[in-house]
Amino acid sequence: MNNPATAILLAECPDQPGIIAKVTQFLSDNNGNIVDLEQHVDTDDGHFFMRVEWQIDNFSIPRNALNTTFAEQVGSPLQMNWRIDFSDIKPKMAIFVSQHGHCLFDMLSRYQSGEWQVEIPLIISNHDNYRSLVENTGIPFYHLPITANNKQQQEQAQLELLKQYQVNTVVLARYMQILSADFIDHYPHQIINIHHSFLPAFPGAKPYHSAHERGVKIIGATSHYVTTELDAGPIIEQDVVHIRHNDSVDDLKRKGQDNEKIVLSRAIRRHLQHEVLVYKNRCIVFD
Amino acid sequence: MNNPATAILLAECPDQPGIIAKVTQFLSDNNGNIVDLEQHVDTDDGHFFMRVEWQIDNFSIPRNALNTTFAEQVGSPLQMNWRIDFSDIKPKMAIFVSQHGHCLFDMLSRYQSGEWQVEIPLIISNHDNYRSLVENTGIPFYHLPITANNKQQQEQAQLELLKQYQVNTVVLARYMQILSADFIDHYPHQIINIHHSFLPAFPGAKPYHSAHERGVKIIGATSHYVTTELDAGPIIEQDVVHIRHNDSVDDLKRKGQDNEKIVLSRAIRRHLQHEVLVYKNRCIVFD
Amino acid sequence: MNNPATAILLAECPDQPGIIAKVTQFLSDNNGNIVDLEQHVDTDDGHFFMRVEWQIDNFSIPRNALNTTFAEQVGSPLQMNWRIDFSDIKPKMAIFVSQHGHCLFDMLSRYQSGEWQVEIPLIISNHDNYRSLVENTGIPFYHLPITANNKQQQEQAQLELLKQYQVNTVVLARYMQILSADFIDHYPHQIINIHHSFLPAFPGAKPYHSAHERGVKIIGATSHYVTTELDAGPIIEQDVVHIRHNDSVDDLKRKGQDNEKIVLSRAIRRHLQHEVLVYKNRCIVFD
Amino acid sequence: MNNPATAILLAECPDQPGIIAKVTQFLSDNNGNIVDLEQHVDTDDGHFFMRVEWQIDNFSIPRNALNTTFAEQVGSPLQMNWRIDFSDIKPKMAIFVSQHGHCLFDMLSRYQSGEWQVEIPLIISNHDNYRSLVENTGIPFYHLPITANNKQQQEQAQLELLKQYQVNTVVLARYMQILSADFIDHYPHQIINIHHSFLPAFPGAKPYHSAHERGVKIIGATSHYVTTELDAGPIIEQDVVHIRHNDSVDDLKRKGQDNEKIVLSRAIRRHLQHEVLVYKNRCIVFD
Repeated sequence: MNNPATAILLAECPDQPGIIAKVTQFLSDNNGNIVDLEQHVDTDDGHFFMRVEWQIDNFSIPRNALNTTFAEQVGSPLQMNWRIDFSDIKPKMAIFVSQHGHCLFDMLSRYQSGEWQVEIPLIISNHDNYRSLVENTGIPFYHLPITANNKQQQEQAQLELLKQYQVNTVVLARYMQILSADFIDHYPHQIINIHHSFLPAFPGAKPYHSAHERGVKIIGATSHYVTTELDAGPIIEQDVVHIRHNDSVDDLKRKGQDNEKIVLSRAIRRHLQHEVLVYKNRCIVFD
Repeated sequence: MNNPATAILLAECPDQPGIIAKVTQFLSDNNGNIVDLEQHVDTDDGHFFMRVEWQIDNFSIPRNALNTTFAEQVGSPLQMNWRIDFSDIKPKMAIFVSQHGHCLFDMLSRYQSGEWQVEIPLIISNHDNYRSLVENTGIPFYHLPITANNKQQQEQAQLELLKQYQVNTVVLARYMQILSADFIDHYPHQIINIHHSFLPAFPGAKPYHSAHERGVKIIGATSHYVTTELDAGPIIEQDVVHIRHNDSVDDLKRKGQDNEKIVLSRAIRRHLQHEVLVYKNRCIVFD
Repeated sequence: MNNPATAILLAECPDQPGIIAKVTQFLSDNNGNIVDLEQHVDTDDGHFFMRVEWQIDNFSIPRNALNTTFAEQVGSPLQMNWRIDFSDIKPKMAIFVSQHGHCLFDMLSRYQSGEWQVEIPLIISNHDNYRSLVENTGIPFYHLPITANNKQQQEQAQLELLKQYQVNTVVLARYMQILSADFIDHYPHQIINIHHSFLPAFPGAKPYHSAHERGVKIIGATSHYVTTELDAGPIIEQDVVHIRHNDSVDDLKRKGQDNEKIVLSRAIRRHLQHEVLVYKNRCIVFD
Repeated sequence: MNNPATAILLAECPDQPGIIAKVTQFLSDNNGNIVDLEQHVDTDDGHFFMRVEWQIDNFSIPRNALNTTFAEQVGSPLQMNWRIDFSDIKPKMAIFVSQHGHCLFDMLSRYQSGEWQVEIPLIISNHDNYRSLVENTGIPFYHLPITANNKQQQEQAQLELLKQYQVNTVVLARYMQILSADFIDHYPHQIINIHHSFLPAFPGAKPYHSAHERGVKIIGATSHYVTTELDAGPIIEQDVVHIRHNDSVDDLKRKGQDNEKIVLSRAIRRHLQHEVLVYKNRCIVFD
């Protein structure tokens, strides 16, 4: 818990010999003690991916000069795309929720226990039923009802709130509204959704009804980044539960909800720890 | 293993009070000791399903009169559809295989160890590469190659072999040919297929390539009865394995094949033990 | 949700032919429409178990005469042990908790969403940290700290509270105190515990530390009825999660806690729906 | 399949800054293109572990000089323990089996399909029943029956055969004899066993009987390196299957055997690909 602060580099570039040596030599030369390193080569695409985490207490490059120095000495020569985050700077994460509260409840439990390195500055809902639950935790709650006519206007209100609270991650905790392409473009690969099926099976509405109708023996949940194509964004986490012929649609919902909240929480954790890199609509998940 | 012989009733009818009482009273009146009974009510459809298994050594109705007597006293008054099988009469099961041998090998292992109550009178393949493996077990092997021109003719040859050997169950153990509707009609809900994805995701050819392309985090296998609509028959068994971003298509195939053979073997066992009842393209699986 | 009220019979007796016929005939004769029936025969012990659920709106025997009538006509002649519950009478369940809140939080989420047919009249803790969480839900919270000297006295206080609130089920939601044999005797097979290992591996304290030390690749959780022998009571539910060599003890705790709360909630649900029958320290779980 | 040949380094040493940089610089300086690198730091012990795999077609250090050069420039200064293997040199693996054939059958299936990079020069059994199965594959089969009196003498015969065939890995595929400490000392962390329980639960004989007696809801299988303490060696792989109250001991055996063969095959694959490093009786498994 009182781990020393670290910097985390997520990077990808065309594959070539010597990349790891260059990166680790750069860190070693500047007194950066590596605590974790994972790499992956996509041999079909000839592309290289890596995540490195190093202690920065004795690191000789100051934080505000890190990106520039890294660019000069490592990133640019290797044609890298990269980002650097710091473990002691908590991401600010907003939650959007509708009427199903199981994911919200689970997230608040983790938030209150300190399980996540995150700040939750606000929660937005198109319904008012979780106001007291949320406000008891001290988090501001905004009720922004959506109708056929006010959707664009309410999205503007949401965007302003997110800007005001400096939010950089949005979690759709069973938020039953489809976001516009404009909204999504503000937060590329920063909006995490939980879909209640093992995508690509049963996209869209009412997947548990479809699963029951088809007679499948497993149901699933999929947490993915939201893109403009519905339920087709890059997948972060999936898991399933087994069902039987005597499970009704209500049983599927109940069993599925336990799965949804666990899958969503795993995806959130990976995102918050900067373990996810998106490439060609797929997630490289370093663990 | 040396269990006393039993009769197994699989039945379905419109739901009404007293069905179980009528069936069990019929068995009790005739000295049939129940060793297993499972029932299910589909409350949406108002439909009743059951499987009962009873010892027949002291049963007062002879086997050849059982269907008639049951019809008179129970089945017809309740508008039942049913079938009665006997545990000491082994089903005759043919295996169709192409070039992937993992399911075939696994099935032969179970056959030789006596795990299944079944007779395998022949194995048919459109390739010749498993001839010696099969013939070493003493099972006749038939090589019926399929081309664009001879498919109909070879299906006739297959049907004649199945008839000659009195086969009542066909297992497609990764048989890479699509059977004609005519062939399928000869064996309704008696042809078991293994598909290498968690259907309804990734039907058709090359599901592991599609799974890799989509970036899913789980892959699955589905065993189902073959119907004329491709990969859409009633599902008997499904299971999944977790994968990671660094799994290539070859890794998916390898991990998936372990899953395929286990899922297929579970489905076969349920079928052979008369535990599966198909209703409206879904399987009621009594266990 | 608005299902018609049902009665549920859980029964066990020496096996003999005709038991199901007698029970179902009794129900049928009295206009009891069976909605679920499951039976099990332990062939080693020659013992029979069953669970039957039937609608009681048109049932001809009044509730208060049911046990007597059943005893006369069915139970006593068959030497049965049995109990009959009604789906519209909610069990009263107390929760005991210490300092780990994940199970408590999860249970309150289910309670508030109406997932369980249960009344939670009070929550008892040996610490005060969850008072406001609990009191926000409207459930009375009792803080009964335990020391080396006051344990017996505090157990008396607990027993009086349970009596006062007419509690019939106690859930130990990571309650870190060992209950006395006297306490346990008041609630035979009515106290549900969650242990954070796949028992019988790692009984007692600090199972995650032991798991890490032993280098296992899976960790588990076990929900069981409390008996006087520590962590040795009949098991209701178990499940596991996979871990890797790079998971620290803290990772094991975190991953394990997600498993614990799900396993506990499944066990509670089965208990509340009268699906569990204990025989020779093993649970028959009808589903 | 036609991947270029690689060298694989497995190494561990006291942790200190710069280890990865030193190793990767060494490889880069000598034209070694890294295809996979994974590292792990045990922060409790302050110990570092890594696995690196690099292409050797253009590597400037010849194979026979590699250990010496690596020792001089990297290994010795860092106080490393390490080993270097080559992907194009197939390990020679013997199989020991008794009367349960499911693992043997599964291994032969994988061997014949070319799934593993391995040579199996001989199979030894204390029974003769799998002779024809084995000999049909072309692998020499040795029948060395064990009695109370000849055990030491037969172990000598086994050791001589292993030496004669230059075996470096032994798999106990449900071999029901306990090996002597002397035998084990010849093959430290090179003998792989499959135990039919989720160790440390149910060590020793008849774990399925014990699992049934205890009433557990999951059964497991554990593949581990054999050490002189029975069933207490470092664990490579574990997995479980769910069971129900109506599963007899025979059902547990059957369901368990499917699990055993899959778990064993995963452990063997990891061992053959030099992905396992043992430290303090625990396995670091790089994947």
